[in-house]
Amino acid sequence: MAETSFFASVKAWLIRIAVKIVVAIPPLHRYVNRRLINRFAYAAGLRPRPFSMAAPYTTWRGLTDRRYSGRHLPEARGYTSRLPSLESVTAVFQRTDDRRATDTSLLFPFFAQWFTDSFLRTQWKPPAEQDFAHNESNHEIDLCQIYGVSEAQTRMLRALEGGRLKSQIRDDGEFPVALFEETAEGLALKAEFEGLYTPDNFHRVFDGATDEHKKNAFAVGLEHGNSTIGNTLMNILFLREHNRIAGVLAKAHPDWDDERLFQTARNVCIVLLLKIVIGDYIVHIAPIPFPLMAVPGMAERERWYRTNWIAVEFALLYRWHDLIPATVTFNGDTRDGSALRRNNAWLFDAGVDRICLDASAQLAGRIGLGNTADFLMPVKDHSLHMARTCALPSYNAYRRHFGKSPAASFEDLTGERDWAAKLKSLYGSIDDLEWFVGIFAEGYDETDMMGDLLTTMVANDAFTQALTNPLLAEAVYNADTFSQEGLAIIDATDSLADVIVRNTGLTDRTKLGFTLKT
Amino acid sequence: MAETSFFASVKAWLIRIAVKIVVAIPPLHRYVNRRLINRFAYAAGLRPRPFSMAAPYTTWRGLTDRRYSGRHLPEARGYTSRLPSLESVTAVFQRTDDRRATDTSLLFPFFAQWFTDSFLRTQWKPPAEQDFAHNESNHEIDLCQIYGVSEAQTRMLRALEGGRLKSQIRDDGEFPVALFEETAEGLALKAEFEGLYTPDNFHRVFDGATDEHKKNAFAVGLEHGNSTIGNTLMNILFLREHNRIAGVLAKAHPDWDDERLFQTARNVCIVLLLKIVIGDYIVHIAPIPFPLMAVPGMAERERWYRTNWIAVEFALLYRWHDLIPATVTFNGDTRDGSALRRNNAWLFDAGVDRICLDASAQLAGRIGLGNTADFLMPVKDHSLHMARTCALPSYNAYRRHFGKSPAASFEDLTGERDWAAKLKSLYGSIDDLEWFVGIFAEGYDETDMMGDLLTTMVANDAFTQALTNPLLAEAVYNADTFSQEGLAIIDATDSLADVIVRNTGLTDRTKLGFTLKT
Repeated sequence: MAETSFFASVKAWLIRIAVKIVVAIPPLHRYVNRRLINRFAYAAGLRPRPFSMAAPYTTWRGLTDRRYSGRHLPEARGYTSRLPSLESVTAVFQRTDDRRATDTSLLFPFFAQWFTDSFLRTQWKPPAEQDFAHNESNHEIDLCQIYGVSEAQTRMLRALEGGRLKSQIRDDGEFPVALFEETAEGLALKAEFEGLYTPDNFHRVFDGATDEHKKNAFAVGLEHGNSTIGNTLMNILFLREHNRIAGVLAKAHPDWDDERLFQTARNVCIVLLLKIVIGDYIVHIAPIPFPLMAVPGMAERERWYRTNWIAVEFALLYRWHDLIPATVTFNGDTRDGSALRRNNAWLFDAGVDRICLDASAQLAGRIGLGNTADFLMPVKDHSLHMARTCALPSYNAYRRHFGKSPAASFEDLTGERDWAAKLKSLYGSIDDLEWFVGIFAEGYDETDMMGDLLTTMVANDAFTQALTNPLLAEAVYNADTFSQEGLAIIDATDSLADVIVRNTGLTDRTKLGFTLKT
Repeated sequence: MAETSFFASVKAWLIRIAVKIVVAIPPLHRYVNRRLINRFAYAAGLRPRPFSMAAPYTTWRGLTDRRYSGRHLPEARGYTSRLPSLESVTAVFQRTDDRRATDTSLLFPFFAQWFTDSFLRTQWKPPAEQDFAHNESNHEIDLCQIYGVSEAQTRMLRALEGGRLKSQIRDDGEFPVALFEETAEGLALKAEFEGLYTPDNFHRVFDGATDEHKKNAFAVGLEHGNSTIGNTLMNILFLREHNRIAGVLAKAHPDWDDERLFQTARNVCIVLLLKIVIGDYIVHIAPIPFPLMAVPGMAERERWYRTNWIAVEFALLYRWHDLIPATVTFNGDTRDGSALRRNNAWLFDAGVDRICLDASAQLAGRIGLGNTADFLMPVKDHSLHMARTCALPSYNAYRRHFGKSPAASFEDLTGERDWAAKLKSLYGSIDDLEWFVGIFAEGYDETDMMGDLLTTMVANDAFTQALTNPLLAEAVYNADTFSQEGLAIIDATDSLADVIVRNTGLTDRTKLGFTLKT
């Protein structure tokens, strides 16, 4: 469905002009903001959904127990039993060429993974026990990446002094503290962090990890917090921001105790993240370059303002591992993309500032078939297995559910012939194409970064679960909740670049961001 | 504020005529139904509320962790520290005379206690540990009275056969099974019910209970399920209804397994309860004799459709112990009201059918000051202590919050002089009157059953948390969820009398109900 490059650029130019006019008139800006968000938020049936992973029919448990993952559409067991073999399908994801995004920087996947890891938390169990029905999500954007998933975990991570999180000062600034310590028997989890992660999650991530990885691992909110350079980078930036804000509040409110300083700084930090997600991150994803805003109180006036419940489709459609390019360069040192994994050592070598700059100045991979690195293929394989175990209906079934006309043919879907032929040989009929493959097979314009249904489904789940955050509620969003100082910080924050500049030696915002900087 | 009896009865007659006209025109009925419900549902700020019992200021935990009770208004510590002594105030509740309700039958408090015990679950701890901040509520009308509070508890109560709950057939019909059994060391909790209640709750209720009480105790969903004859009666009726429905479904769907039969019967039973709550119970409470309806999908179109969160004020305002009259008569046997407590033996003597009839044919007590039986005074004392520990603001502060003009004087509040003088001597100024006393001091007409603010607050919390039940959602309320048979049962149920007639030897609905039958 990709347009020719000339018409696409004329269209893009016209859209930019229109957007400038709209943004110049604040009430019009808010109106269009609301209309755009609602277009996606109302694209499919609202929660509560009749089905969840608790049972193939409607049960009280399935309607209320959010430890079971939600689902947009009910099981289609008959359909999934007729699908081509897993191996034959998985192969379509494998990278054949180092294709890059049009203008998406490597900072984008760094943020995307870190952000989504916090609420897309399918429960992990050893393969024999894995049922995919359960999740460990809090179903909220709560910055559990730095605060931990529950009250007990949060306490372990707090300095319990000055409202701050535990941290250490190294040569190049503030960092989380170490998770492990040297003992007579070798590296061991520090006693103060016993129980920070569930035993299953801890063993999954750290069993078999090298001593170097453990030595460099930081005590952060999630077990995956040290798994990639991107996760570590974001944790460092937001930990610094939290402690910086706690300091600002402590100065302004000498009578506040640690608890109040901590809770207020956390309220502020969560809203900073929400503002970045809507106004920077989703704006980059959106097919139209429109400055979306997280307007407090807006969502409450809409019918989609419902209790959050992460669906299994949301967890799966976010498997954007294609964004990790074949090679990555920091400080002139080029390595295979796999070097991003469990490698805080490389982050120390290059330095936080350099990585922020370099990640903003190199392209991410392109989302689509044939572009998943070898080392990430097991994730795609596992995802497809999960989609089938959950008996998700076909790609066209989801198109219909999200109010779109079904794809008429494989060419119609992909906008080209080679992939279309490959998929046709696998599935025969476009109506039999499976959803997890279809969303990555969608053709899209140069100005976009993913296809039509994928964009709609991301936006639907994102808007209806980010903008329902209680901190954005009209009765909550005020100086009592954030303090005057906190409100000023919120008002002064529009992008991830703002947080980076406040917490590194970098000063030039124009060199930082999700859109490639040169 | 009570009117003279003549004008009151003319007014009542006019209202009845108007209601008849409205109900005769279904779209008008639905319109007025919605308007009436909305009047109460929008009476105060919507959830999410900035404050909860987690902290005196807004915290992430306080906005998201529903194990902390909600609260409508923030702490007023300065105010509560100036209040008259607890003892001097508690005395105003003590029964001085056996005052009865105008037309409310004893069946009403039987149902009210049983119903509210399921979601007003302030966490109980031994006095030294009690903090009133936590609750054990599921925040939903989920019939946990017969199903238990969680999946594990539900399994203990299920027969795991035919979709039924465990039950026994006695001479006079079906009953839950016994909770205790005879052992060499005396009566002991049956092994199959180990963990049915938390240790704290179990010890609280059964430590010190007589052997007779234990011997007669049934295995039901809540620890308080055997604490009064009313609770036991309702548990028996709804267990019978569940098993009856499971039987209907099993006959219609011979291919369904126990699990599907159970879950579907539960879906149906919960909606029966919701229909009875809105269309029978609240209709009886309402100042206007209007047939309210739980219209599926209606609430979703309203801004008050928000995640449930039981507030501490809701738990306290429901302390309607005044409804228990000085004496109770079953089968010609008149006893002190306290004989209703821990007395399944009396229920066996009189029989389920007789109690349904007799409870419908005798008056409940009148809600108001000076009408709490001695044996229930500790509850009022504890409630006032709780209200103060929670630092609830004044009666007039709540009037303002619920959009009402503040009471101008004690006479204005009570509509008479004696109580007004007593309260004035305690509090001095009407603006210093505490809320928990004020809601019971309100004067009201003969046609009503409680005062103005109390009615509004009950209705606000009830409507906004009952009609948000996921089973009433448009996408859920259908034959897939309930089966055709289940839908037919739902359609055929408007009142508690319907459930009684289906599950006892009684056949005359006109002899059964919350309004006194003669």
